[in-house]
Amino acid sequence: MDETTPPRASRQQRVERDSLGEMSVPAGALYGIQTMRAVRNYPITGVHISHYPEFIKALAAVKKAAALANERMGLLDAERAGAIREACALLLAGRYRAHFPVDVIQGGAGTSTNMNVNEVVANLALEILGRPRGDYAFLHPLNHVNLSQSTNDVYPSALRLALVMMGRDLHKAMGRLAKALEAKGRQFAHIIKIGRTQLQDAVPMTLGQEFSAWALMVEEDRQRLLEALDLVREINLGGTAIGTSLNAPAGYPALAVEMLCKVSGHRMVLSSDLVEATQDAGAYVQFSGVLKRTAVKLSKICNDLRLLSSGPRCGLGEIRLPKMAPGSSIMPGKVNPVIPEVVNQIAFQVIGSDLTVTLAAEAGQLELNAMEPVLAHNLFNSLTLLRRGCLVLAEKCVKGIEADEARCRELLERSLGLATALCPLVGYDQAARVAQHAQATGQSVHEAARELLGWDEERLARVLDPSAMLNPDAKGGAA
Amino acid sequence: MDETTPPRASRQQRVERDSLGEMSVPAGALYGIQTMRAVRNYPITGVHISHYPEFIKALAAVKKAAALANERMGLLDAERAGAIREACALLLAGRYRAHFPVDVIQGGAGTSTNMNVNEVVANLALEILGRPRGDYAFLHPLNHVNLSQSTNDVYPSALRLALVMMGRDLHKAMGRLAKALEAKGRQFAHIIKIGRTQLQDAVPMTLGQEFSAWALMVEEDRQRLLEALDLVREINLGGTAIGTSLNAPAGYPALAVEMLCKVSGHRMVLSSDLVEATQDAGAYVQFSGVLKRTAVKLSKICNDLRLLSSGPRCGLGEIRLPKMAPGSSIMPGKVNPVIPEVVNQIAFQVIGSDLTVTLAAEAGQLELNAMEPVLAHNLFNSLTLLRRGCLVLAEKCVKGIEADEARCRELLERSLGLATALCPLVGYDQAARVAQHAQATGQSVHEAARELLGWDEERLARVLDPSAMLNPDAKGGAA
Amino acid sequence: MDETTPPRASRQQRVERDSLGEMSVPAGALYGIQTMRAVRNYPITGVHISHYPEFIKALAAVKKAAALANERMGLLDAERAGAIREACALLLAGRYRAHFPVDVIQGGAGTSTNMNVNEVVANLALEILGRPRGDYAFLHPLNHVNLSQSTNDVYPSALRLALVMMGRDLHKAMGRLAKALEAKGRQFAHIIKIGRTQLQDAVPMTLGQEFSAWALMVEEDRQRLLEALDLVREINLGGTAIGTSLNAPAGYPALAVEMLCKVSGHRMVLSSDLVEATQDAGAYVQFSGVLKRTAVKLSKICNDLRLLSSGPRCGLGEIRLPKMAPGSSIMPGKVNPVIPEVVNQIAFQVIGSDLTVTLAAEAGQLELNAMEPVLAHNLFNSLTLLRRGCLVLAEKCVKGIEADEARCRELLERSLGLATALCPLVGYDQAARVAQHAQATGQSVHEAARELLGWDEERLARVLDPSAMLNPDAKGGAA
Amino acid sequence: MDETTPPRASRQQRVERDSLGEMSVPAGALYGIQTMRAVRNYPITGVHISHYPEFIKALAAVKKAAALANERMGLLDAERAGAIREACALLLAGRYRAHFPVDVIQGGAGTSTNMNVNEVVANLALEILGRPRGDYAFLHPLNHVNLSQSTNDVYPSALRLALVMMGRDLHKAMGRLAKALEAKGRQFAHIIKIGRTQLQDAVPMTLGQEFSAWALMVEEDRQRLLEALDLVREINLGGTAIGTSLNAPAGYPALAVEMLCKVSGHRMVLSSDLVEATQDAGAYVQFSGVLKRTAVKLSKICNDLRLLSSGPRCGLGEIRLPKMAPGSSIMPGKVNPVIPEVVNQIAFQVIGSDLTVTLAAEAGQLELNAMEPVLAHNLFNSLTLLRRGCLVLAEKCVKGIEADEARCRELLERSLGLATALCPLVGYDQAARVAQHAQATGQSVHEAARELLGWDEERLARVLDPSAMLNPDAKGGAA
Repeated sequence: MDETTPPRASRQQRVERDSLGEMSVPAGALYGIQTMRAVRNYPITGVHISHYPEFIKALAAVKKAAALANERMGLLDAERAGAIREACALLLAGRYRAHFPVDVIQGGAGTSTNMNVNEVVANLALEILGRPRGDYAFLHPLNHVNLSQSTNDVYPSALRLALVMMGRDLHKAMGRLAKALEAKGRQFAHIIKIGRTQLQDAVPMTLGQEFSAWALMVEEDRQRLLEALDLVREINLGGTAIGTSLNAPAGYPALAVEMLCKVSGHRMVLSSDLVEATQDAGAYVQFSGVLKRTAVKLSKICNDLRLLSSGPRCGLGEIRLPKMAPGSSIMPGKVNPVIPEVVNQIAFQVIGSDLTVTLAAEAGQLELNAMEPVLAHNLFNSLTLLRRGCLVLAEKCVKGIEADEARCRELLERSLGLATALCPLVGYDQAARVAQHAQATGQSVHEAARELLGWDEERLARVLDPSAMLNPDAKGGAA
Repeated sequence: MDETTPPRASRQQRVERDSLGEMSVPAGALYGIQTMRAVRNYPITGVHISHYPEFIKALAAVKKAAALANERMGLLDAERAGAIREACALLLAGRYRAHFPVDVIQGGAGTSTNMNVNEVVANLALEILGRPRGDYAFLHPLNHVNLSQSTNDVYPSALRLALVMMGRDLHKAMGRLAKALEAKGRQFAHIIKIGRTQLQDAVPMTLGQEFSAWALMVEEDRQRLLEALDLVREINLGGTAIGTSLNAPAGYPALAVEMLCKVSGHRMVLSSDLVEATQDAGAYVQFSGVLKRTAVKLSKICNDLRLLSSGPRCGLGEIRLPKMAPGSSIMPGKVNPVIPEVVNQIAFQVIGSDLTVTLAAEAGQLELNAMEPVLAHNLFNSLTLLRRGCLVLAEKCVKGIEADEARCRELLERSLGLATALCPLVGYDQAARVAQHAQATGQSVHEAARELLGWDEERLARVLDPSAMLNPDAKGGAA
Repeated sequence: MDETTPPRASRQQRVERDSLGEMSVPAGALYGIQTMRAVRNYPITGVHISHYPEFIKALAAVKKAAALANERMGLLDAERAGAIREACALLLAGRYRAHFPVDVIQGGAGTSTNMNVNEVVANLALEILGRPRGDYAFLHPLNHVNLSQSTNDVYPSALRLALVMMGRDLHKAMGRLAKALEAKGRQFAHIIKIGRTQLQDAVPMTLGQEFSAWALMVEEDRQRLLEALDLVREINLGGTAIGTSLNAPAGYPALAVEMLCKVSGHRMVLSSDLVEATQDAGAYVQFSGVLKRTAVKLSKICNDLRLLSSGPRCGLGEIRLPKMAPGSSIMPGKVNPVIPEVVNQIAFQVIGSDLTVTLAAEAGQLELNAMEPVLAHNLFNSLTLLRRGCLVLAEKCVKGIEADEARCRELLERSLGLATALCPLVGYDQAARVAQHAQATGQSVHEAARELLGWDEERLARVLDPSAMLNPDAKGGAA
Repeated sequence: MDETTPPRASRQQRVERDSLGEMSVPAGALYGIQTMRAVRNYPITGVHISHYPEFIKALAAVKKAAALANERMGLLDAERAGAIREACALLLAGRYRAHFPVDVIQGGAGTSTNMNVNEVVANLALEILGRPRGDYAFLHPLNHVNLSQSTNDVYPSALRLALVMMGRDLHKAMGRLAKALEAKGRQFAHIIKIGRTQLQDAVPMTLGQEFSAWALMVEEDRQRLLEALDLVREINLGGTAIGTSLNAPAGYPALAVEMLCKVSGHRMVLSSDLVEATQDAGAYVQFSGVLKRTAVKLSKICNDLRLLSSGPRCGLGEIRLPKMAPGSSIMPGKVNPVIPEVVNQIAFQVIGSDLTVTLAAEAGQLELNAMEPVLAHNLFNSLTLLRRGCLVLAEKCVKGIEADEARCRELLERSLGLATALCPLVGYDQAARVAQHAQATGQSVHEAARELLGWDEERLARVLDPSAMLNPDAKGGAA
């Protein structure tokens, strides 16, 4: 059987036609001929646009906003406008998702997605008005639902609104992760341990500082996310085909955006140059770059968690992650850092998606970027994965982390990094000699310093006291 | 409701236990406790491992091969071995896919995938033996199904077998595309047109050469794909945990691989150094690089198709793509190159996935690469998308392409590139003067040459005959 | 000869020693033993850190600021502090660049770079004080020049200051490009042409809108660049080894940053959590992402310039780029869009570098990111290339672009996109029929509309007037 | 001063002209007007094409081969052909590199590079013939030196020849690295240690197996490199502008390639379809993918080296890297793994460059890929960096690595992984209980097994003997 053939339609059919000809549509379908064509044309990922509920809601919000604006400007009569608004409200409530079968990756710059919505809204509105599906002479997907619009302004406007919606959810999830890390930072503030740079023993710090630093990383990224979301609030709604607002009346763009804010409850802003806004994919690239930043950060944190919990007996072993699953099908008792590992992989996926977004953005030509569908798919996917990754990491890993205080102390005392504190007193070269002597003889810094510098115990204890080597002002520092 | 909570289990339950404790499992599930843990632990993509049927089949093939080897080496009795083989055969037949609910992106280096298979095979085998699900004391997912194995050899071996299976399908799809392009190369071999370099008019060629060149590109990539597939045939089956074959008897690796070849019908090869093979992800990177090569090529071809069909009236317009959908929700009559556009987007997805594969490969540490699940997901996805892209491009675009011969001729005659043929006769500088004169005056090269060189018509016609400027030996050349 | 051996030193030598032993240093060198080691250890790119003069200046500014802070806090006597400040001033004036031979890509997290500066400053200061080079007992690279510092705060602080300095230059260059584009936008505001979406003829716009849109893209990116620069102003100076400020006195970090602002004339800000700041590479990733955004935009603009100037006779040909070079070694008279092409390539280089920056950022471990040198190199390089690309594009291409008005008019009149204006009057379906009839018969939309709709000339002229299809409010729009 | 202005020419000048006009050239320059234009047009990277000596040699080899073919086919007289050959021989000997000032990143698809060579060869040949520079009427850069050629076949052919030359050098350097690793594999074959998967203690192996596995990784990559080099041996020489061989006589392509093999000593192959070969960049993408594979592998090895040498007292500490530099400007005695770190960074650079190559390859349009210069630059750079990285890693790190046998033994004995060997005897679940009991009580596996299983010492010693858990057949295994 040929993969490129369309899904088999049900027995009951209605016939629809568009400018390319006629086609049968399942009688029960709210969508119409153009959606049918899209389903046939794009058997690509198997992921339908309904996979991202926020996107369908955003599209419905745009259609509702347009109907409101059109009605207010006298382009649409109250009956039709009312029915369209009601239809959109049903979609905004999350209903009829099965009627959006178009593939997330599609040609045509999103036209199929726009037509899928136009057709579903038209047929729902017709139903509301007591008319049969397909009675487009009365209420037309294009002439009425898509009035004063073009895919080229509807699609990116809805995409951006969906990014705002999903971005808020990611922001919340990151908040939960930051909070979980910060709680551990406080919990471990009293545990002094050796810090490491370049995987080599460095100088003392607290385990609390370790976690607080990660918490702050995530917290800073939350702020960056909000800023990046502000960039995508700028939309070209009302620019129609290429930003010249052809077939939209004067004043329509501003009114439509105002309506969209009301309908969606999100602050969206009309771009100052609609021609530019219609072809420019810069905000997506930057937004994706910020998601990549977060991915890089999560990956770094997970790498560190895996390092610090390495062992249980032949690694660093300063912390213990909660046991989520037996770790091996062959090694009994082995438990692996599976949650950090899965978040690492999420990070790799998001970084890869950033490249796809970049490629799609670069491929825009002249008045439009036709590659927005793959760009949307990847941004939506990254937002989803990062959100889930933050939640999983917070709930199933960070919250259950325990410190091995004894191990931290043991390593700290063994460390040569304490010799750093000698520098201001004896100079770098002499301090180095102490450290090297300790290393060569197996002594502690304390012992080597006593031997080489001839200091008394009191002075040694004071100078080499690790708890004096912390920055007491720093977050997560020992009190 | 918390996204990180597990899916609700059905009313009827059985209790299973593993080294971390007890858990209820739906009575109807063929999988067991470790699969349950994985479903809870990894609510990541929502894509289950069963999304890639070849992967489940490859895993079943590995389990069957192991059972055969274990039986032959006297480690497994005939009754259990037989039941396991029979269970695997059911999975190889494509059944019970709903019992593989583990997310494609998971921590644990694939342990959850391996355990999902171990549990399903164990319970199917128990059923075959007339015993209740969960009767692991009789037939154990680890002690019997996973005997002489570790996730660390099972998972990559199955992954590689699945790549071979899916790679063959891509190879076929690319063959269809190459054939479709080559057919057009022959069909258009007589149409002479202007070639373009750097988007500037260059020298004559045939439209057939254009298509034949693309056909050859795809054909060459098919060859590269076969070579890359050979690299992934090398597996570490029998190396168990880290390649030292601990808990597998001497001779087991070679026997298991031999059995796997028989069971799967694919030639797989035992790696010469199992420690190396267990940690090395090089073959994946290279395989992905070859898929990226194909993506780059498809993208280039689609870019060219879109350029040559640009118009209909204000572009190059040398070819016409089949009309797949009304192109615009606002511009009547507009038809867009939607199939090349969707294939461009597939290419961008595959190139992004190559980066994810690279990142995952680089993240391997010491004796294992724990990031293989995301690597597998992206390779499987790229293979799937490229296969579909090739089929869609061949069937829905290339086969229906028509040439606009009149347009080709018109542009060719207008072109200044014909002046190139003057170089051998009058030198580069004089030929440049002819071309510049033509450009300045709006003349044709013919006219300008007559005026500046004073040649007679016969000579002009002979020297400036475009059909004499083609390489008659080249593929797709005019006869 | 072995590539990994050090450069031959001059005849005259002095002997220096560090904690690993003794080594000869050319007598004329301002640098010392640790720089020598670095030159031997890192024969990697052949590009020395002095390749980026702003980086050397930024390092000198940090050293001067540290000396000022150390002196004020009583850690450094006036004589030595004064000599160090004077030495730094010489470096800030751009002198002695040949004494920074360390490779831009180096191990050790920048220690070699820091030591190169420490040694050069120490020897310059010794010279100023009338003492011989290498007299470190009197003024020591570590004990005095590097006092209260660590590579781990000096290197990133200087790196960030250099980014600010180079970022300002890029900002200016982008300003010149935006201005050049905007001037063309005004110059071409009266030229009406066909807009294109998906390379297919769409609806009318002005050539001025085309250029103004590009100008705005660049202008928006300038704003994003400033915001991204603000992120890198945050530094960890005073955090020393891991952010705990070990060996720096209380109050030092704030004072050192205050001094750095004064010395450099740039606003730099002390990070609120120095432990976090020492290990976090997030700002670099985001900064690089913004540079990538600009690269994507420049590439898009250049792609469009090449499309619109394609021809001269067989392409779109709406604009003419200035002729910069004979285009071909074989095709006389051919002139290629070489400047856009080189800017495209710059964009590809910058996008590749963004990946390198990402990989380096992800590779940070625990308290430090040791991969900062390659990260710095790529950011510096991207800033340099983008700056040059903007200048070259503005000066050697955009400023000299001419419009082919006749060609614009000819294509516009031929276009079917004008049928869009019929939609509000006759509905989408009927308008589509007009467009299709025109296409089928070779008629203009005007002719087809007359035939199918039976409208009179006056109405046809009014409705199908392209100049009425522009958004008069838009930038670059026809007055 | 304006960065986009040309370099100041010397006082003595000669005047040259091309199809765009006249220009002064320094009298001492072997290059001419078109090189001058290029220097002015492309102030991009500051890296001249002469930075890659193999590239200049490859270009000279192509010019010499062309002269030989042209002479043999009667297109070039013996005097001029001889002079051209002699001029090329001087370049092949590495002379006159200062006369190749064109930037590596340039517009025009390499035309400036080709013209730089044409001009230098022409002027050298004129000098050989006792004629003044610039006497092109007698011997012309285009009519004679470039005879039967186009940039579009010369540039990629030379690029590929240079790749072959540089690839051979990388192959050698990788051989040295593999050999150094393999020597360590043999040296450490007797040291038993704990293997680690997912950074968690796994089962025993030898330190020799660790190094031998890395050696084999590099060795396998060497094989892949040779295969990838074979792909780039295929050239389009003789295809001229677009592969139709316009202005080259029948038989020229084969003869020119034959001559090139002789001149260069490398096996190059004529492509079977020159139109395809002229536009296809697939081989570069694949070649770059193979370099990326090697980069990924080197990065993985370096990550492992840094992990295993982490410490000296608070890390894994199983091996010691040679001390290359004092590690810190603040922490006395600290020594960092600087050589692996620099190789990690090389890997990141190469992976980033692979993306640049991919982007450049994807940007080809119709009959040519105009982005080859940036592609060439990145491939050349990657080959150079990888070669240096392998040498530095081998000579300055691997060869000096020492094992800490006591540490390996200590960790091994402490490890719980030994419990794996119990599985075949007592089943997975019971073995897990032993491991968990040991972990809970702090016992060794030996102790826990005695307690829970009640085995006698002899049995315990036999079953838990780590040296029995290795694969004796594996490379680097204990004898």
